[in-house]
Amino acid sequence: MGGMGRGLFHPQAPPPGPLPPSGWRAGGTLVSRRARAAPGRHAMSAGWFRRRFLPGGPLPEPRPAGPRSSPVPYHRPRFLRGSGSSPGATDASRRPDARPVRSPARGRTLPWNAGYAEVINAEKSEFNEDQAACGKLCIRRCEFGIEEDQEWLTVCPEEFLTGHYWALFDGHGGPAAAILAANTLHSCLRRQLEAVVEGMMAPQPPMHLSGRCVCPSDPQFVEEKGIRAEDLVIGALENAFQECDDVIGRELEASGQVGGCTALVAVFLQGKLYVANAGDSRAILVRRHEIRQLSSEFTPETERQRIQQLAFTYPELLAGEFTRLEFPRRLKGDDLGQKVLFRDHHMRGWSYKRVEKSDLKYPLIHGQGRQARLLGTLAVSRGLGDHQLRVLDTDIQLKPFLLSIPQVTVLDVHQLAVQEEDVVVMATDGLWDVLSNEQVALLVRSFLTGNQKDDPHRFSELAKMLIHNTQGQDNGATGEGQVSYDDVSVFVIPLHSQAQEGSGH
Amino acid sequence: MGGMGRGLFHPQAPPPGPLPPSGWRAGGTLVSRRARAAPGRHAMSAGWFRRRFLPGGPLPEPRPAGPRSSPVPYHRPRFLRGSGSSPGATDASRRPDARPVRSPARGRTLPWNAGYAEVINAEKSEFNEDQAACGKLCIRRCEFGIEEDQEWLTVCPEEFLTGHYWALFDGHGGPAAAILAANTLHSCLRRQLEAVVEGMMAPQPPMHLSGRCVCPSDPQFVEEKGIRAEDLVIGALENAFQECDDVIGRELEASGQVGGCTALVAVFLQGKLYVANAGDSRAILVRRHEIRQLSSEFTPETERQRIQQLAFTYPELLAGEFTRLEFPRRLKGDDLGQKVLFRDHHMRGWSYKRVEKSDLKYPLIHGQGRQARLLGTLAVSRGLGDHQLRVLDTDIQLKPFLLSIPQVTVLDVHQLAVQEEDVVVMATDGLWDVLSNEQVALLVRSFLTGNQKDDPHRFSELAKMLIHNTQGQDNGATGEGQVSYDDVSVFVIPLHSQAQEGSGH
Repeated sequence: MGGMGRGLFHPQAPPPGPLPPSGWRAGGTLVSRRARAAPGRHAMSAGWFRRRFLPGGPLPEPRPAGPRSSPVPYHRPRFLRGSGSSPGATDASRRPDARPVRSPARGRTLPWNAGYAEVINAEKSEFNEDQAACGKLCIRRCEFGIEEDQEWLTVCPEEFLTGHYWALFDGHGGPAAAILAANTLHSCLRRQLEAVVEGMMAPQPPMHLSGRCVCPSDPQFVEEKGIRAEDLVIGALENAFQECDDVIGRELEASGQVGGCTALVAVFLQGKLYVANAGDSRAILVRRHEIRQLSSEFTPETERQRIQQLAFTYPELLAGEFTRLEFPRRLKGDDLGQKVLFRDHHMRGWSYKRVEKSDLKYPLIHGQGRQARLLGTLAVSRGLGDHQLRVLDTDIQLKPFLLSIPQVTVLDVHQLAVQEEDVVVMATDGLWDVLSNEQVALLVRSFLTGNQKDDPHRFSELAKMLIHNTQGQDNGATGEGQVSYDDVSVFVIPLHSQAQEGSGH
Repeated sequence: MGGMGRGLFHPQAPPPGPLPPSGWRAGGTLVSRRARAAPGRHAMSAGWFRRRFLPGGPLPEPRPAGPRSSPVPYHRPRFLRGSGSSPGATDASRRPDARPVRSPARGRTLPWNAGYAEVINAEKSEFNEDQAACGKLCIRRCEFGIEEDQEWLTVCPEEFLTGHYWALFDGHGGPAAAILAANTLHSCLRRQLEAVVEGMMAPQPPMHLSGRCVCPSDPQFVEEKGIRAEDLVIGALENAFQECDDVIGRELEASGQVGGCTALVAVFLQGKLYVANAGDSRAILVRRHEIRQLSSEFTPETERQRIQQLAFTYPELLAGEFTRLEFPRRLKGDDLGQKVLFRDHHMRGWSYKRVEKSDLKYPLIHGQGRQARLLGTLAVSRGLGDHQLRVLDTDIQLKPFLLSIPQVTVLDVHQLAVQEEDVVVMATDGLWDVLSNEQVALLVRSFLTGNQKDDPHRFSELAKMLIHNTQGQDNGATGEGQVSYDDVSVFVIPLHSQAQEGSGH
């Protein structure tokens, strides 16, 4: 999403650059009018789930006639404007070994002087399906205790709680979902945070957002549950991902497009860095003597039990075409009647079962490691979009098995005694496919030791260097020099900049 | 369950002592004939779940006429026979401060010279609802490659894989389920292990239990999934708990009794200690410089998201009487229309919602910490039994929310370089309510430093001492001397005994 760092998400300021077709509004979300009329949040209703995904429910309402909204236009993050390589829709290089690594132009700074670099895949797709966004997050707060519906009556001196935001989206099935997510998620997050900001600013979140005490023991109840301001931010991130997923679903439907994306978000707010992840990107903290993974990956393999459990609960979702059981390989006729290794949704261990005919069906989750696929189709189990995704040539839907909820980890930066070389590295799976956490940490440390401390661009140079190390260049630090043929996008966030900036008010 | 350690679960040897009414058989399970005719494993069918728990399904089949089996008789673990206190049904002491602490008689040794002690609750119930079992586990193995249905034709030299077994069961709603579990679970486990033992003995579990290779790459597929012998033991434990739960359900129905229990099991097999837990008991490893928790607790609080998720999927289970949402306290009329703190199944964080009338219902999970209750009724969310348990004066069932599946952790004892003072402490929640892991470790270490190394009874003395420390005796190591009014049962398993015994062939 567009524009340089500062002021980007300020509610009064529209972002720089041309407006996307369905319209940015001050403080608003990218949603066309038709899409806005669509039904609400699916997570709130089991009935909705059953009607939407299970056979025998009422037919979907016919789509109202009217003009389709235009397709979401492809673009690269706007903070790349003016950088070396040619931008636009045709930046897929013809020669994999010459794929250009792009980073922001010198003189263009991202929040905290964070670094960024990206490379497109080796002709796996026409477009770079990764997207990125970053900026300042301005959370509007009214005076404590003002009733929401009287807000417009009140001469209310607005204040802002300021945060920072970095996000990576790794698209699949087309670039549209990742672009929509990069354009939208920060707005959803801002809205969710504004809905709870008074609770975040109080010494302890009050039972009632109004601050009024209905029951004198309310603070004690909140205390006993251990509810802190950071739990409101976690809740806001969880809700923002869901809201964004709904927006993407409506936008894609309105524009007749398809696709999905993973989402990895880092938000700095009130002295803490929140890392929210839905998909297989990863963020790690690299310090002189510490490597800490700040996210974990959600794939058909890591979420096997949740996915099998759902197929157990709603066997209709497999339409008789798949088996929910896991076997070491796909079974064949010769296995019939034999006792083979298997596991079901309730098992972390393995057992043996006698093979029946229904076990020969294609497995719900097939393959191992990076090759694991959900319903033979998808390599991730959490993310945004994919509302229309179906197994090839069938009516079997992927969406019911996908979660848009992120896992959120919290890094208390103010407790960390941040050193100048402490950075958070966020990257899409293309990087982690070929470099381990330890290899990345080695590269980061040796780069930061040898480079100009006062070059504001050095973290983008570092991000570029990390990507070069995924392109088969033999490097002392990483040994063999493996090649990633995927899109790769990297943010490097220096934590020390924040400490220099002062408190993250 | 009864008898002294050695040979207890050997399939050819019935246990010592009088037979329970529904019949021990050599190598068999405690199941009355009527109960055996009942339907099979519920975990295998979503249809079963829906018919069993959701309204509108077909009526349950009428129970066939016939004599009820006798109620399960109350008894203490048989390895306590001959110990100090008076056994039998009336061992609830009248004065809490004089509750007798019982342990095996001197001269009666448990496997590995493990120690055991117990105390009954302070008149919370008439009976001590904790139960315990321990013994040797003999897993029969036939020759590799013998077809199951030809077994009786074959002059098959039987071998045995020998293990050891210790288990604690904390009953509620009556002692029956815990007694059944103590009588049954080891048999279920032995049967599950015998079903996979050939796979466990192979260098790597073969894809086909027969050892025949249908596909030449089968070993490679198994290798890629990382399937090891220990995964078969984990699977066997998971399946044994489920099988035992089914047996208990049928036995309780047949005898017209009710109740449930938690289950914490330690099994030593092939050099590894497996700790399987369903409920709120706990096992910890105490070494000179290390404390390692080997289990985690499953309560309505720790399993909130799973339980709320189920209520989201099947709102019928709440019969309109409960709200699945969590609030810091139960809401009341004055809260209507206010925005209050809440969270739903998909949230680890908190948010605010405007209170509607349906939010005033009693919460699915209510209370905090030790006070948390599922449907206002139950303090644990995993365990065995409770098949008939309903919310008082309603038809709302608890069972669909309960899991009988344990979480299994594996301790590789042979990798541990076991020292003489290394022990595993297993205890029901009565101990952990008043003593922390650190306090228990302190007590263990100081006891073992000061006591006769060659007294085979010393680990029971240690178990007794731990229990005395839950009875309000002020002790230098633990400070204040808190009191547990609950049943408390403790095993202390010295790991060094195993090392002395030689390999766990």
